[in-house]
Amino acid sequence: MFAEKELLLVPGPTPIPPQVQRAMMRPIINHRCPAYEELFSGLQEKLKRLFAVTGEVFVFPASGTGALEAMVVNFLSPNEPVLMVSIGWFGDRFGEIAERFGADVTWLKLDWGTAATPEIVAEAMDKAPKPFKAVLLTHNETSTAVVNPVREIAKVVKERGASLLVDAVSGFAAMPLPMDEWQIDAVATASQKALMTPPGIGLVAVREEAWEAVERTQMPRYYWDFRLARKFQSHNQNPYTPPVTLLYGLDAALDMIFAEGAEAVFERHKRVRNLLRDGIRKMGLELFVPDDNIASCSLTAVKVPEGIHGGDLIRQLRNKYRIEVAGGQEHLRGKIIRISHMGYIHESDMLLTLEALRYAIKDLG
Amino acid sequence: MFAEKELLLVPGPTPIPPQVQRAMMRPIINHRCPAYEELFSGLQEKLKRLFAVTGEVFVFPASGTGALEAMVVNFLSPNEPVLMVSIGWFGDRFGEIAERFGADVTWLKLDWGTAATPEIVAEAMDKAPKPFKAVLLTHNETSTAVVNPVREIAKVVKERGASLLVDAVSGFAAMPLPMDEWQIDAVATASQKALMTPPGIGLVAVREEAWEAVERTQMPRYYWDFRLARKFQSHNQNPYTPPVTLLYGLDAALDMIFAEGAEAVFERHKRVRNLLRDGIRKMGLELFVPDDNIASCSLTAVKVPEGIHGGDLIRQLRNKYRIEVAGGQEHLRGKIIRISHMGYIHESDMLLTLEALRYAIKDLG
Repeated sequence: MFAEKELLLVPGPTPIPPQVQRAMMRPIINHRCPAYEELFSGLQEKLKRLFAVTGEVFVFPASGTGALEAMVVNFLSPNEPVLMVSIGWFGDRFGEIAERFGADVTWLKLDWGTAATPEIVAEAMDKAPKPFKAVLLTHNETSTAVVNPVREIAKVVKERGASLLVDAVSGFAAMPLPMDEWQIDAVATASQKALMTPPGIGLVAVREEAWEAVERTQMPRYYWDFRLARKFQSHNQNPYTPPVTLLYGLDAALDMIFAEGAEAVFERHKRVRNLLRDGIRKMGLELFVPDDNIASCSLTAVKVPEGIHGGDLIRQLRNKYRIEVAGGQEHLRGKIIRISHMGYIHESDMLLTLEALRYAIKDLG
Repeated sequence: MFAEKELLLVPGPTPIPPQVQRAMMRPIINHRCPAYEELFSGLQEKLKRLFAVTGEVFVFPASGTGALEAMVVNFLSPNEPVLMVSIGWFGDRFGEIAERFGADVTWLKLDWGTAATPEIVAEAMDKAPKPFKAVLLTHNETSTAVVNPVREIAKVVKERGASLLVDAVSGFAAMPLPMDEWQIDAVATASQKALMTPPGIGLVAVREEAWEAVERTQMPRYYWDFRLARKFQSHNQNPYTPPVTLLYGLDAALDMIFAEGAEAVFERHKRVRNLLRDGIRKMGLELFVPDDNIASCSLTAVKVPEGIHGGDLIRQLRNKYRIEVAGGQEHLRGKIIRISHMGYIHESDMLLTLEALRYAIKDLG
């Protein structure tokens, strides 16, 4: 039993819906022809609608890490003071990329499992000797399953005149993030999370008001150059070969999201999260993030019960129950498991997961 | 007639074989699990075999342009003198990327339609005031359908102690390029050319002897960092999410290449090229590159007959005969058409193409 049918619950890649799978089977086409331009025109329109942005959504053959690097080299200049608000492993990496490219990074590192607050960001900005040109922030911290209050933080960042660059790789399309309304200057995400498409597309949305900052940036860039991309995208083209089959998939995924309704998709993510969290609590297990107000709707971190190692639990879930979940990173290795529920995930998947988790823990004594 | 079934003959993306298509339909998996590590281990082995290299083959979610940028930022340092040997549009772009990142580029620009020679490269190297740290060379120039004598040029470059970085985006797997034997330090290519896989994978092979150069480079880098990639690839992992479904496809494509035999694949490309070139000549049309010795086996450029505009010929082939070919770039726009025959292309495709071309020209008077 439990052979063959696997349930993939890691925070990317996430399961691919049959509609997306089918779309990617369409014969490949020339990316310099009218049929491609029609596809890409529709795709840009749908993406702008989902990002809720007046501006541009840049589409790169890349992973989410590439999308982060693209924000860094298009918004920052060497030696420019920037604030990195990090609440976990992926925040640390975002800041590391900025440091590699010579930005003058001030770190606001908060405890893993907590969220940032507008007050703490305002304080860090106000006490800085030189005003920060930009604030780098994680929307959904995948290593801890915490979501930051981006709307409130954006307010204090914009009041202080800095650019706000948001890593929403694992949060976008799972939780609301309307860019224009919240005044977020740039948002990076990737295809293989809540966008339900295989990995290979990195996306960066830039709101119109932020474009000036891109024009004045001094970092060397070619592949990630938003100025070059904008020139091509304005006539529904790309500077170099786009990942055509993956774009077919993304286009179908966006159609699914709008057919369900973006708000309904966010509601479903919340419902699925609540169902899982309730079940975990009822089972007597402990949530790594007890506070529902900062608990991610993309994934949930569960403390591994005393006497069991996280690695064993992951292997038991994989090998016996065919459910693939993720472990903890750094000091959380072996101590938590992370169950993703972003994208093509529904209540039934969580019922199965809860039951399998109960069995697996029993198996391990 | 001629509805529905399209023949894609642009120099990337190229047609996807059913075997590759099927492989990409496999359910997606976690990239941090044993099943992925098994896939990636096999893939690395096959890639090293095809590049004929002792060293590393780095796999990026990227286009071919990304693979070129990766070579630049891992091999060059700001203000370092390098020689760009350009024989066309893609050579110009390779050099532009190096300039963007601050390399001190000396240009050896040759006429479009000609190939570089070892003598001319040796002369440029010998007369340089400061010795070049690296020579940047195109294997197959896609804009003109010319292949450079890489083996002979490598010899003079290595005798003079410079690194040799080769853009083989549209030549790799269509024509021989054994890295160790020819002493090529780095080769960049991409999935959507002779590798018969959809776009989205950028590849850079680095031979073992060249590793020292990578270690001393001063360019800022994170996404493209070979040092980071090598650390992860040594245990069959990647620093960030790889394009899993495309890697399934690439793995199947490599199996096809080795089943046919790499030498047999090169022979087929030559046979297909010869068949097309003979047919073009017999039809009374003119080849843009008359000399068979420098004519690419990946694609062929044909002069558009007097009185016809290239754009019209391309549209006629597309709309009536369902054959998609490429036009000329820059000053060759409207003057040539480029017919790709790399990857999953066989003699029958060229017979059809010749016949359709004959009809299309007749249609246009």
